[in-house]
Amino acid sequence: MLDAVRWITRSGEICTDYRPGLAREGGTLRLLDQTLLPEDVCYVELNQTEAIFDAIRRLVVRGAPAIGCAAALGVAAVLNAAGKPDLKLAEATAARLAESRPTAVNLFWALDRTIRYLHDHPGTDIREAALEAALAILTEDIAMCRAIGTHAQTLIPAQCGILTHCNAGALATADYGTALAPVYVAQEAGKQVTVYSDETRPLLQGSRLTAWELTRAGVPVVTICDNMAAQVMRENTVPLVIVGADRSAANGDTAPKIGTYGVAILARYHRIPFYVAAPYSTFDLTLASGAEIPIEQRGGDEIRCGMGKWTAPRDVAVYNPAFDVTPAELIAGFITERGILLPPFR
Amino acid sequence: MLDAVRWITRSGEICTDYRPGLAREGGTLRLLDQTLLPEDVCYVELNQTEAIFDAIRRLVVRGAPAIGCAAALGVAAVLNAAGKPDLKLAEATAARLAESRPTAVNLFWALDRTIRYLHDHPGTDIREAALEAALAILTEDIAMCRAIGTHAQTLIPAQCGILTHCNAGALATADYGTALAPVYVAQEAGKQVTVYSDETRPLLQGSRLTAWELTRAGVPVVTICDNMAAQVMRENTVPLVIVGADRSAANGDTAPKIGTYGVAILARYHRIPFYVAAPYSTFDLTLASGAEIPIEQRGGDEIRCGMGKWTAPRDVAVYNPAFDVTPAELIAGFITERGILLPPFR
Repeated sequence: MLDAVRWITRSGEICTDYRPGLAREGGTLRLLDQTLLPEDVCYVELNQTEAIFDAIRRLVVRGAPAIGCAAALGVAAVLNAAGKPDLKLAEATAARLAESRPTAVNLFWALDRTIRYLHDHPGTDIREAALEAALAILTEDIAMCRAIGTHAQTLIPAQCGILTHCNAGALATADYGTALAPVYVAQEAGKQVTVYSDETRPLLQGSRLTAWELTRAGVPVVTICDNMAAQVMRENTVPLVIVGADRSAANGDTAPKIGTYGVAILARYHRIPFYVAAPYSTFDLTLASGAEIPIEQRGGDEIRCGMGKWTAPRDVAVYNPAFDVTPAELIAGFITERGILLPPFR
Repeated sequence: MLDAVRWITRSGEICTDYRPGLAREGGTLRLLDQTLLPEDVCYVELNQTEAIFDAIRRLVVRGAPAIGCAAALGVAAVLNAAGKPDLKLAEATAARLAESRPTAVNLFWALDRTIRYLHDHPGTDIREAALEAALAILTEDIAMCRAIGTHAQTLIPAQCGILTHCNAGALATADYGTALAPVYVAQEAGKQVTVYSDETRPLLQGSRLTAWELTRAGVPVVTICDNMAAQVMRENTVPLVIVGADRSAANGDTAPKIGTYGVAILARYHRIPFYVAAPYSTFDLTLASGAEIPIEQRGGDEIRCGMGKWTAPRDVAVYNPAFDVTPAELIAGFITERGILLPPFR
């Protein structure tokens, strides 16, 4: 895989599993800088709290699972670089990193879990304990991706077009991604899958990230503008849609990236099954339905000046919701690490 | 109106109507350079064949009705600037301008009509005859726009949101446009209309042109990415969709700008009426259905590098159809200069 978020030892070894003494070898957090894609492939190594905070905030790393892994490995890296690492430093680092992004649940969860592990292992070298906790999160994320990819294979014939939206791939996780895991596993199994990737305005995660990571992995990918998905479906090119998700309510209503709701409607009109690939933890059972999921509004210049050039009047009003809610009735199933959930979802 | 395509006399008078002696006053074709919008508002005056050819080809003027007006006025301008204008020069100019864009039917129609008029009026000063023919086309286009706008008023309540796609407005015609004419006439009637304008990837006619012309006219407009239309519909913001069209088959199947088909499906799902505003001449009765309308494919870099920056891998495959076909079953009606056509359309 492309190792978007990893631990790297002083000697340059890329690690996904913990082994005793790893922190003592020296090492740090390594991230693939996603802000420079698709033009430049650049890895950054970080071990200072503010630099890691900045990297998460600036979207050097993005995608909820990848952010969680980066934050936990970040705590380990800061402790590893400190002269006298202690629990206080770990807690201060975690508290600061938790402020880097407001909505990514995985961020808080991964930091809490790392700090709790340190509390539970007072006898262990704190650098080793933090790294053990962080790499456990990474390892589980990798296993989650593989399991989603494997469970999805019953849906994917030997030759198949799949339409996806945004990026829920290797760049958004520690491994195969969620929505793209079925594609990578299908490729390993010798299936011929072509992915149609919506470019995903305004931030273009589809054309900048999904198209890049699939091209790099040798998976055939066709980039389209979001408004071309209906025509692609009409031409019978994609018998299957798979997208990722940020949060799902107890009834199955799901909030993924803006534009996904429209894709789900287009799929229904063309009688194409629409699947959400996401870990079980995406379900927020405290929410009865999608109506309770608040819609975040983002800055207008993402649309007016998204690519460094003014493509709309500078003072024109803009509506820029970061995500929308796809009602459960449009979802054929959830592909999770425990298997495929079919309706009714409650 | 914003006078996207006009005759301008030597003394600077902007003309839409012919009067005897107008060519003798001296004058030329004036175009609003749409390639510089929304950042710069710049008018160019042209009277040389190659410069007019280049302006049409480079989309300085675009929109089928506007192109037709520009080409006819262009012939008049070339004749007006020539030392010894004759029918041969007129025919050579028309033949050259006809090569500037391959698909705009109005272009060929306007040039044919102008040359035919010259043939039919051998006794008249050829410069006057050409200008008379060209300004007649302009005058009819203005009347067509106003009639479409007026007929649409029965569909528009006193307060209303309207969603549109691409630009079928004042910049695409000699006056109020087709899809936007109902909006301008509603505004004149004191109605409060807010337009939601899809930005319309890849060439962004919605955010660059529609948002600009409506803002300039004082009509409230909200720019959205194409993939946000479903969410806007879900929020009950737009009880009406009006779009333009390039070509309609005898059964009502219609080919407008890429992405319109998807908008029509989303409107159907949300039970929002979807109207096409277009002159009667848009119907091509030689085509039985939309299946006979060929889908033009455009260059991939429009998507990969649309705004002067690479937003996808440079070598990634791209699917870039210039338009799609909206089946008649999704169309609530056609708003034409002769009234509103309701189904069945044949």
